[in-house]
Amino acid sequence: MKALYLEDGDIRIKDIKKPVPSQHTALIKVLKAGICNTDIEIIKGYMDFSGTLGHEFVGRVLESPEPRWVGKRVVGDINVSCGICDFCQKGESRHCPSREILGISNKDGAFAEYLTLPVNNLHSVPDSVSDTEAVFVEPLAAACEILEQIDIENGMSVAVLGDGKLGLLIAQVMRLETPSVSCFGRHDKKLERLQNKGIRTFKNGEMKKKAYDVVIEATGSSSGIKHALTMVRPKGYIVLKSTIHGEAFVDLSKIVVDELILIGSRCGPFDKALDLLEKKSVDVEKMVDREFRLEHAVQALSFAENPDVVQVLLVP
Amino acid sequence: MKALYLEDGDIRIKDIKKPVPSQHTALIKVLKAGICNTDIEIIKGYMDFSGTLGHEFVGRVLESPEPRWVGKRVVGDINVSCGICDFCQKGESRHCPSREILGISNKDGAFAEYLTLPVNNLHSVPDSVSDTEAVFVEPLAAACEILEQIDIENGMSVAVLGDGKLGLLIAQVMRLETPSVSCFGRHDKKLERLQNKGIRTFKNGEMKKKAYDVVIEATGSSSGIKHALTMVRPKGYIVLKSTIHGEAFVDLSKIVVDELILIGSRCGPFDKALDLLEKKSVDVEKMVDREFRLEHAVQALSFAENPDVVQVLLVP
Repeated sequence: MKALYLEDGDIRIKDIKKPVPSQHTALIKVLKAGICNTDIEIIKGYMDFSGTLGHEFVGRVLESPEPRWVGKRVVGDINVSCGICDFCQKGESRHCPSREILGISNKDGAFAEYLTLPVNNLHSVPDSVSDTEAVFVEPLAAACEILEQIDIENGMSVAVLGDGKLGLLIAQVMRLETPSVSCFGRHDKKLERLQNKGIRTFKNGEMKKKAYDVVIEATGSSSGIKHALTMVRPKGYIVLKSTIHGEAFVDLSKIVVDELILIGSRCGPFDKALDLLEKKSVDVEKMVDREFRLEHAVQALSFAENPDVVQVLLVP
Repeated sequence: MKALYLEDGDIRIKDIKKPVPSQHTALIKVLKAGICNTDIEIIKGYMDFSGTLGHEFVGRVLESPEPRWVGKRVVGDINVSCGICDFCQKGESRHCPSREILGISNKDGAFAEYLTLPVNNLHSVPDSVSDTEAVFVEPLAAACEILEQIDIENGMSVAVLGDGKLGLLIAQVMRLETPSVSCFGRHDKKLERLQNKGIRTFKNGEMKKKAYDVVIEATGSSSGIKHALTMVRPKGYIVLKSTIHGEAFVDLSKIVVDELILIGSRCGPFDKALDLLEKKSVDVEKMVDREFRLEHAVQALSFAENPDVVQVLLVP
């Protein structure tokens, strides 16, 4: 089968063996997949990964150890955990130290015709949610994770840094909790996709100092933390969402003196994301710039790096 | 009066005017004061301060707008806030944006014969608490602040990084909450002061990876955060206590991937610290290396920088 394959820092379409499901995993035909900023970071060297890229997808189950899944349209949690360690036993399998991660760590991903995942990772996609919408479940779940970590009360002021896909999703999820949401970015064409959603949008540079109860850093850039530290009020929260290859300079004494709380936030609950899409509470269709056939995935990656582009889809 | 005065980066004993109390402030004769690592950082340029240094002290009230304070032995909260801003109104006066801070920002400090503080900042010292013990109230309160920020449950494993005064106080306060407390440092002579307190002590380099529920960074060095990030378990807490002049390199993606919570922690509740000293729950006398007369304060500062020294006191 065809797959977008990363090997020794080189990314190309490669013919690889179709995966064979094991006793606990389903074979899934990929219907659509989305390119994420993390994919770009992985190509640059983050996670030291070799294999098929891609972790945002919707697919159809072809084979499954549990017959009820066969024929179902599904999305899937990207962390494949051991099930027996302390973290797995405590229900924190996303932090299982020996986990594999779809298209990110030790497991071939979704930019291919087929993939395998444990049936325990699968979530059925309701008919009212389109393939395109379903591709957004993984990043939308990551946005929902913030609500598992902080109690965003109605009336709190929230600033979202970043006008990429994750930033735009987070802004929409936050807006469901509080009316005071501001999204900051560099590109008018990206920020425009939040129009008429009750979210204030600003260009970087228009940030107020010490003004926000919660600042969510989703710029994908190491400079985001500097802005976040300036904007958050004393005793406020900074949520870190960007997985960036390398280290950043941080003024730690600012965190101490203002008694700030920094929270790292990664993957989130797929069921909540599917629920938001089913209720049409979050608008994702507007974020898609273009679809490419899988065989043109290398061009799709270049297109995705265009500063005005939010989401690029791949169709096997 | 004599004071240890910082001016244009130069530190010396200077004859300055005795302070005059205002309508809301008491005049206090300093009995003893302690040299803190923050003082050393301030001399290096942190906070851009000019004036009399010193914020750890015990004194006796000579004049007060409220007569009941006159003659009392007191310690004092170092943040002098406006009383009318949003933070002050919400009871978070320690974050008042226009606050002055004793010996740290815009207010002459305790390395002098006399100081002034608002009567609202004062706490009466019980007779059973010695002058030397009372000097530790300010840093001990800072240690207690951690308990206001995290619920340390019995059974949690806590690592304290740093064998300075603050590290040794924090380790003792944590030991009151959970039996699993490890303190890491560079100096046997400092770590020895935790002997027979049920706290395990280790040299740096003996740290376990991803092993601790809570890691408290009190090294006073920008390298502490690197160790903390290695030691804490996924979804664990890092408490930052060091106020360091300058920035540190931090691997932010580690915070994101492991969904860590970093908490900045500064001053704390004086009443809780006084309570611990009165109950003899925390042992501080063993931490004092030497007392100097105020006129020898410059030598005392040099002595305090000796790597085996924990606490140096000044007596006006």
